Amino acid sequence: MRIAIDAMGGDNAPKIVVEGALAAAKEWKDVHIILVGNSAAIEAHLTERPANLTIRHTEEVIEAEDEPVKAVRRKKDSSMVVAGKLVREKEAEAMISAGNTGALMTTGLLVVGRIPGIERPALAPMIPTMDGHGVLALDLGANMDATPEQLVQYAIMGSIYRSKVHGVAKPRVGLLNVGTEAAKGNELTKTAYPLMEQAPIHFVGNVESSQVLRAKCDVIVCDGFAGNIMLKTLEGAASAIFSALKQEFTKTIFTKLAAAVLKPGLTQFRKKLDYNEHGAAPFLGIDGLVLKSHGSSDANAIKNAVRQARIALQNDLVGTISAEISHGKRDITT
Amino acid sequence: MRIAIDAMGGDNAPKIVVEGALAAAKEWKDVHIILVGNSAAIEAHLTERPANLTIRHTEEVIEAEDEPVKAVRRKKDSSMVVAGKLVREKEAEAMISAGNTGALMTTGLLVVGRIPGIERPALAPMIPTMDGHGVLALDLGANMDATPEQLVQYAIMGSIYRSKVHGVAKPRVGLLNVGTEAAKGNELTKTAYPLMEQAPIHFVGNVESSQVLRAKCDVIVCDGFAGNIMLKTLEGAASAIFSALKQEFTKTIFTKLAAAVLKPGLTQFRKKLDYNEHGAAPFLGIDGLVLKSHGSSDANAIKNAVRQARIALQNDLVGTISAEISHGKRDITT
Repeated sequence: MRIAIDAMGGDNAPKIVVEGALAAAKEWKDVHIILVGNSAAIEAHLTERPANLTIRHTEEVIEAEDEPVKAVRRKKDSSMVVAGKLVREKEAEAMISAGNTGALMTTGLLVVGRIPGIERPALAPMIPTMDGHGVLALDLGANMDATPEQLVQYAIMGSIYRSKVHGVAKPRVGLLNVGTEAAKGNELTKTAYPLMEQAPIHFVGNVESSQVLRAKCDVIVCDGFAGNIMLKTLEGAASAIFSALKQEFTKTIFTKLAAAVLKPGLTQFRKKLDYNEHGAAPFLGIDGLVLKSHGSSDANAIKNAVRQARIALQNDLVGTISAEISHGKRDITT
Repeated sequence: MRIAIDAMGGDNAPKIVVEGALAAAKEWKDVHIILVGNSAAIEAHLTERPANLTIRHTEEVIEAEDEPVKAVRRKKDSSMVVAGKLVREKEAEAMISAGNTGALMTTGLLVVGRIPGIERPALAPMIPTMDGHGVLALDLGANMDATPEQLVQYAIMGSIYRSKVHGVAKPRVGLLNVGTEAAKGNELTKTAYPLMEQAPIHFVGNVESSQVLRAKCDVIVCDGFAGNIMLKTLEGAASAIFSALKQEFTKTIFTKLAAAVLKPGLTQFRKKLDYNEHGAAPFLGIDGLVLKSHGSSDANAIKNAVRQARIALQNDLVGTISAEISHGKRDITT
């Protein structure tokens, strides 16, 4: 398995990316890692040179604030675009980047390319749930608007990912909605509902956004707009509530003492709700594995992304999606 | 001012509705309250008979689980529909109900009727914010899908409500979105943005759903689907976080003691986040004032809804919206 890693992407690149890649190369000997980026910068942090780790030198870097499409088109020798080219040209089977999300999705679309039959690839991060298992949400970012047919493709891809990568036997797929009855929602969800029922997935119906944290499903399907509204509301609510708690805790000497007792448990709980802790997000529907690590990833997160890529490759995630989509298309149209 | 109150609507009707109405009648002598419902049931809870409170007997009741449109069409002698008729026939200027939300919106649309020029009336509850002021959100329930032009009408109506009823001098109107830049969002928000800029409102641009609790605006505009996704996510997150806190608090004798110290502050804070505490929601765009009290309202909430209605009537809310919409239409089309 050959995995290309964008060494220059992320808040702490290349240092932590190199460290994470090195740790992964040492742990999994069946993986060959190609660190893509400025070789001098990479070598400065490379304390060892295992045989299954090589460097592919590039000159350019796509920055966090770059306009995605423009950056991908112009910076042809950037670490991200070159990693994409390695996947397209089958020199690698997967790429991982902690860089500019929009640019990575553009790299997936324009450099690596879609799986034939996939209308719109979807970004699928895990959203934390109270039980700690998390729910795969898609699309969360690639496409603001979606058609009912695209939602069905998201459902199929998400379902395969949960089963192939997370080992969930029969992933429960929910449709993000404002009520549970089939007739609830907007035109999009109302039209998608019966299509979901016919799709080759374990559809559990509409799931209210208030229930997502309660782990009512393993995959939640939505257009990018609704999904982002949900995710950002979750983040905003958690951040607002925890900062208000902090205020309560520091009011008097007594509350400070009380807070000190509660702090370890609360910190752990806060961490559980932090979706940055839940691994890299696959960009599903691309003809090759593309994983987005968080910009603030540490070395361990990068290593974990390699673990994810390894499991996805071992279980032929991309091939399975490709087969199911062409098969699924027949199912729906006949 | 004549205000019709649906005495039979809500979880604790008619008892608490009658109590709240009585308290309001005693406090505001310039208000005449018409309690609409079963006269025997109402009288059983009516401890006094002030001159400015009368009963309008009706036989039927729309239940919480009734299908809204069917119920309004069939139960013509229900307390809710009769209250709506009083408004349509100018026997009352406002109606208040804590009953079935869908049925109340249907009553507003089919019995009372729209303001000419309003495409879609909108339900506009207050969403709690961390600073305690709250933000008026619309539409939250009447229409799942919306056009850009309808969003502009929501913005105008919400702006007038905040100014007329809450005395906010220059209400900041935000467009619910997934990013702050003008080009962010789906087709709906991208098309609405420039129209918002031209509308006779104080448009402050896109507001991310993560920032709504941070009180970035006084009015937040959205289609009913996105708005409900936001609201239900907020409710779900608050409920999940507080129940997890409770678990943390009861882990050991030490955390229990610590929690006891923090409890008063936390309870107060939890209450601040409870959107049931934030008054009745106006159904804006109806040719008469229609207020939706929460199903779980207590007598004080009903009294407060009368207070809201009184202020709205004193400041000619409905007349102002009507004038602005016909004026606004010219503004936009010329």
